[in-house]
Amino acid sequence: MNKFWSEAVKRTEPYVPGEQLNDPEIIKLNTNENPYGPSPKVTEAVETELKRKLHLYPSPGADELREAIAQYYELEQNQVFIGNGSDEVLAFSFMAFFDQDSKIRFPAITYSFYPVYAKLFNIPYEKIPLNHDFTIPAADFCDTEGGVLIANPNAPTGLYLTIEAVEAIVQDNPNCVVIIDEAYIDFAPASAVPLVKHYPNLLIVQTMSKSRSLAGLRVGFAIGDSGLIEALNRVKDSFNSYTIDRLALAGASAAIKDDAHFNETTDKIAQTREWLTGEMRNRGFTVLPSHANFILVSHERQSAAVLYQRLKQEKYLVRHFNKPGIENHLRITIGTDEQMTLFLKALDRIMETTATNHYEE
Amino acid sequence: MNKFWSEAVKRTEPYVPGEQLNDPEIIKLNTNENPYGPSPKVTEAVETELKRKLHLYPSPGADELREAIAQYYELEQNQVFIGNGSDEVLAFSFMAFFDQDSKIRFPAITYSFYPVYAKLFNIPYEKIPLNHDFTIPAADFCDTEGGVLIANPNAPTGLYLTIEAVEAIVQDNPNCVVIIDEAYIDFAPASAVPLVKHYPNLLIVQTMSKSRSLAGLRVGFAIGDSGLIEALNRVKDSFNSYTIDRLALAGASAAIKDDAHFNETTDKIAQTREWLTGEMRNRGFTVLPSHANFILVSHERQSAAVLYQRLKQEKYLVRHFNKPGIENHLRITIGTDEQMTLFLKALDRIMETTATNHYEE
Repeated sequence: MNKFWSEAVKRTEPYVPGEQLNDPEIIKLNTNENPYGPSPKVTEAVETELKRKLHLYPSPGADELREAIAQYYELEQNQVFIGNGSDEVLAFSFMAFFDQDSKIRFPAITYSFYPVYAKLFNIPYEKIPLNHDFTIPAADFCDTEGGVLIANPNAPTGLYLTIEAVEAIVQDNPNCVVIIDEAYIDFAPASAVPLVKHYPNLLIVQTMSKSRSLAGLRVGFAIGDSGLIEALNRVKDSFNSYTIDRLALAGASAAIKDDAHFNETTDKIAQTREWLTGEMRNRGFTVLPSHANFILVSHERQSAAVLYQRLKQEKYLVRHFNKPGIENHLRITIGTDEQMTLFLKALDRIMETTATNHYEE
Repeated sequence: MNKFWSEAVKRTEPYVPGEQLNDPEIIKLNTNENPYGPSPKVTEAVETELKRKLHLYPSPGADELREAIAQYYELEQNQVFIGNGSDEVLAFSFMAFFDQDSKIRFPAITYSFYPVYAKLFNIPYEKIPLNHDFTIPAADFCDTEGGVLIANPNAPTGLYLTIEAVEAIVQDNPNCVVIIDEAYIDFAPASAVPLVKHYPNLLIVQTMSKSRSLAGLRVGFAIGDSGLIEALNRVKDSFNSYTIDRLALAGASAAIKDDAHFNETTDKIAQTREWLTGEMRNRGFTVLPSHANFILVSHERQSAAVLYQRLKQEKYLVRHFNKPGIENHLRITIGTDEQMTLFLKALDRIMETTATNHYEE
């Protein structure tokens, strides 16, 4: 604490992202990055842009990328907002749609950045407990006063809420904004984007960090009614005129246009996920049926905290959230088939040792 | 207005950045970009990084770049904060150091984003009138309750406050944070960075958009006591874990290390500025003595608004602020000698025509 800190800083409880270890031997399965590189067209586009005008400001509205996303989803440009990663889009959304006098709701187990934003912006909130099977109790998100924020598929469970369930929530909250954080939607059956044209209170947030393999480039976006997008623009233009640099704009626009690479890599990840789910179940793990690029697993005779440490010693970094309800679970990002085969071998070695240790401890 | 907008959105008055025209023939002298490209080492570093790990998140703390800036200024890493352009650094600073119950002060004529931030974050403020010669009345910034924000050199005047004057302001505000926005400092005599080790309430904000020719890459930074930097980190980590992408980190780090390119291009711009100042005075313009990469000019017999339009017709885009005190001034970014020679020729043509028009109108 420091006497120069504002009240806002004093109340913050900053988010702690997954570890970024520098060890080149580590296999990173902890922050849901895509094991396949981005489209080769991204590299080409960045190389071309690099030779152009790095000394000039980029488009403040990220127009080229907005247009590319609008075309991809068959929308108008004024229904799309671009941000410096979906985390920034979410932060702007907290400023744009939530107020200090009414409670917002989000699931008790979800992306742990949501309460962090709420504390920074002093937005009161209610955490809605998940059902026992970790599904989201959709009925508990109706008639909300201040707003709704749901990740779909949810993180870290990977569970998917149907479009019909999303629509019911949006319909039952006519006076506040419902934000659906679709960071992982490209690994799931379908996006709620088509609902946007029917509901002025629905905002969809997506990222290029997962399905587009561009976590290193920092691009996210929101899709919604033009009235909501205008609010996001007003916040952005009161915060930072140019949030996306020229190279990121060029690269992200190229990525959105490369359907072939996108389909190939997302399909592959979904296949690996299904195979890995089976393999983990064969080993006695409970695996939630994921529609994301990760799985959440637990084992009734293995401590997740211990397993996390053992895996780290073997150079496999997964995510352990020491939080009520998931303290005995591990979230494992889907890597390549090769990485996951090696992972399973390491897991088998560990399970043999810890099975013994378990009874010794 | 829209019923879903928050109170924050309703009170915003978004900043309007200088025009970004797509006309390739236009000579852009309106947003203080650097006419020389960035260091060739920037391109090399980006190309190398591009082949690496775009699918993985970047360093959340921008560690490599923080280290490069710390070394450049002979500081510790914990005295440096990196942001997505200095606009983002300023936005985070408003959140980190200013509160809704005490007024901050900034000059009445300065970077017009300051009141925009204040409105977004609901921070009350006093605009301190400049002296008649457009200098900043340093004494009026003493004993401030809520904080001080001064651009040095000031924009759009280009006038420079000495380190001694800055130090006096910092000393006379022991209970609040003094932010010195040094966006243009590399074109001026000296930075106030060395004061940072003596004053826990001084925050210096700089950008790589001007002297480092990287407006298109979006990198800014703050330098201050580790207590202030910690506050900025807490805000950032409650807002967006990864604000700087891998390519920008690589490019900006390379730029900071290339002293030769930096010295050559900033020296050249200062020379062109001095030459242009003389040329404009020869043509009857009043030119404030600038220490930035722009000049603010006026002419007693020429309307700045008309001149702005005529220059635009001739494909020279300069900046006209329709604001009290500078409504009859134009801000002209320093381009290359060649660009400014052409600009002067166009100006001469316009002056001949408008001299006639003036009496006709």
